[in-house]
Amino acid sequence: MPRLVISSDGPAAMPGWRAAFQHVAPDLPVAAWHDPALEITADDYALIWNPTADDLARMGGMRAIICTGAGVNHLLDNPVFPRHVPLVRMGGEQTAALMADYVLWATLGLLRGGRTWAVQQNAHQWHNPRTSTPTSSQTRVGIMGMGHLGAHVGRKLLQVGFQVSGWRRSAQVVPGIRTFAGPSGLPDFLRDVDIVVNLLPSTPQTRGMIDYALLAQLPRGAGLVNVGRGDHVVQADLLRALDEGVLGGAVLDVVAPEPLPPDDPLWRHERVTITPHVASEASREAQARYVVEVIGQLERNERPALLCDTRRGY
Amino acid sequence: MPRLVISSDGPAAMPGWRAAFQHVAPDLPVAAWHDPALEITADDYALIWNPTADDLARMGGMRAIICTGAGVNHLLDNPVFPRHVPLVRMGGEQTAALMADYVLWATLGLLRGGRTWAVQQNAHQWHNPRTSTPTSSQTRVGIMGMGHLGAHVGRKLLQVGFQVSGWRRSAQVVPGIRTFAGPSGLPDFLRDVDIVVNLLPSTPQTRGMIDYALLAQLPRGAGLVNVGRGDHVVQADLLRALDEGVLGGAVLDVVAPEPLPPDDPLWRHERVTITPHVASEASREAQARYVVEVIGQLERNERPALLCDTRRGY
Ligand SMILES: NC(=O)c1ccc[n+]([C@@H]2O[C@H](COP(=O)([O-])OP(=O)(O)OC[C@H]3O[C@@H](n4cnc5c(N)ncnc54)[C@H](OP(=O)(O)O)[C@@H]3O)[C@@H](O)[C@H]2O)c1
Ligand SMILES: NC(=O)c1ccc[n+]([C@@H]2O[C@H](COP(=O)([O-])OP(=O)(O)OC[C@H]3O[C@@H](n4cnc5c(N)ncnc54)[C@H](OP(=O)(O)O)[C@@H]3O)[C@@H](O)[C@H]2O)c1
Repeated sequence: MPRLVISSDGPAAMPGWRAAFQHVAPDLPVAAWHDPALEITADDYALIWNPTADDLARMGGMRAIICTGAGVNHLLDNPVFPRHVPLVRMGGEQTAALMADYVLWATLGLLRGGRTWAVQQNAHQWHNPRTSTPTSSQTRVGIMGMGHLGAHVGRKLLQVGFQVSGWRRSAQVVPGIRTFAGPSGLPDFLRDVDIVVNLLPSTPQTRGMIDYALLAQLPRGAGLVNVGRGDHVVQADLLRALDEGVLGGAVLDVVAPEPLPPDDPLWRHERVTITPHVASEASREAQARYVVEVIGQLERNERPALLCDTRRGY
Repeated sequence: MPRLVISSDGPAAMPGWRAAFQHVAPDLPVAAWHDPALEITADDYALIWNPTADDLARMGGMRAIICTGAGVNHLLDNPVFPRHVPLVRMGGEQTAALMADYVLWATLGLLRGGRTWAVQQNAHQWHNPRTSTPTSSQTRVGIMGMGHLGAHVGRKLLQVGFQVSGWRRSAQVVPGIRTFAGPSGLPDFLRDVDIVVNLLPSTPQTRGMIDYALLAQLPRGAGLVNVGRGDHVVQADLLRALDEGVLGGAVLDVVAPEPLPPDDPLWRHERVTITPHVASEASREAQARYVVEVIGQLERNERPALLCDTRRGY
């Protein structure tokens, strides 16, 4: 009989988690990681976000580990992470739908000057520059990391009328979206993109890859939406590209470090919008539904779609 | 032989207008309203935005008047406006597409806390409240004024997955959008709307209609996007509704008066986003294309879709 042991978000979150699982799967036994009487068995599933090394050391005999985040780099980077235990990351319809809504908002904000209006509002200044902007259907959006979320976001942008292209490691195809593969496909991808959306996972290959040299390959004045991880971007290069007009604007939901220190120059940049890592915060109930689905698949020896490949790093 | 006499945006705009018409319709004669040698004939079309009473007095013998704005209340409110001359307002694909993009951005911003993040960024403050927001497909958007722009905006919101309803004077139907008609349909329309978008024209019937009593009929905490006219909204009532939590937030592209005075309390409200009347600013070339199309229709004695009904007031 499977049991779920929850550590994600700590003891304070337990009542919320219990209510969510009670509603979604009343028969699933649920235990708190922080319960001093807890004894872990081989039938137990762990639900975690950012456990300590001590916690991780106790997970080696568990059935599987489910992470409440879609990015698992902070786990796989930890040398004590038990790599033989199956690791499944957060997914589900709501996670993808929220990400698509956020990226749509961020992309339209870059197109329509959202940050300019916020800066003017802050100064109580009414100034209509009377310049016409392109429409969504005149705008090319490129998605770096055309995976689970990238494909969902791309389809939503297509529905709105944007021209969408993608870049990924493999040559898998998403219908309607021209996709470029690997390092050799990157220059061609970047050349034809007005707004680039980063949805890569953070791995040794992708960290720091959004640097000045990459940004300079975009058409002059292009926009950047970062919803991947802060460490993908070399922040000094980003500021240089913005100040030289190489980049027209950026919307950053992820930065390094988080929280962004109060004296970081990104906060006051007139062409940078910062949001505090809120792009895709599914409700506990939606997360619970997804977790129950994953447990069901693993119990039936099916492969969950978002099972991590620890060798690949995502 | 028709000729276009341009006064919209004044003498400084003439080179831009000439270039646009040269590109779109090289054979159409174009004259400047401000040319002292100008003699007006019955074959002349006027292209105007906000003419003086003296200017209007000289337009009584013209073939038609085309306004570069979609709202014409400032013309029809003027007692010297020559009501026997056909008046056509701005339209065209780009105008509608830009409006749809703006409303989509504003609606997603209300859903996802765009103003909250701007306020936090301004304070260099990183705070993730860890609350889940509804997705676009869980959100009901209601459009007041389901006319030319309203129908276009509604279709775009439907494509994104929003649930869309509309309200108008007549009982005309837009496929996929439940539409309520007239004063008797208003309460039912307002009751089931999470975000209301105002796209009404400003007329004696609609001015001041968005007051506390109307806002209080929305579900508590609903959002408002105003892209109609500033005088639709009773601003003191709007502030009261926001401060009482009756309204959750507002995005205002139009206010009264414009420009909004620097000491207006709307500027610093934590749940109000202000943009300086930029929702739909088509390029001169797109406007020129539309004007040429309208002149062609009138020359062939066809009825332009956006011919104003001076009696109705829009
Ligand atoms: N801001 C937020 O709130 C938030 C929320 C959720 C997720 N995220 C971020 O979004 C990331 C993506 O999530 P996901 O669920 O879409 O992951 P995913 O399904 O694993 O997709 C990752 C994509 O990146 C591509 N990729 C990986 N390494 C690459 C490389 N070296 N070169 C080129 N392409 C590479 C993969 O290509 P292949 O498919 O060809 O292997 C895949 O298309 C997460 O890792 C997380 O960092 C952020
Ligand atoms: N912010 C900006 O940048 C910007 C740009 C363009 C336009 N606008 C504003 O948008 C407005 C709408 O433009 P449009 O081209 O869509 O105009 P439109 O085609 O005339 O549509 C107006 C709609 O309002 C409805 N309506 C009028 N009076 C009403 C009343 N008393 N009760 C209920 N419904 C009423 C009409 O109903 P029926 O169809 O049943 O008659 C129609 O559906 C313009 O007047 C302008 O103020 C703003």
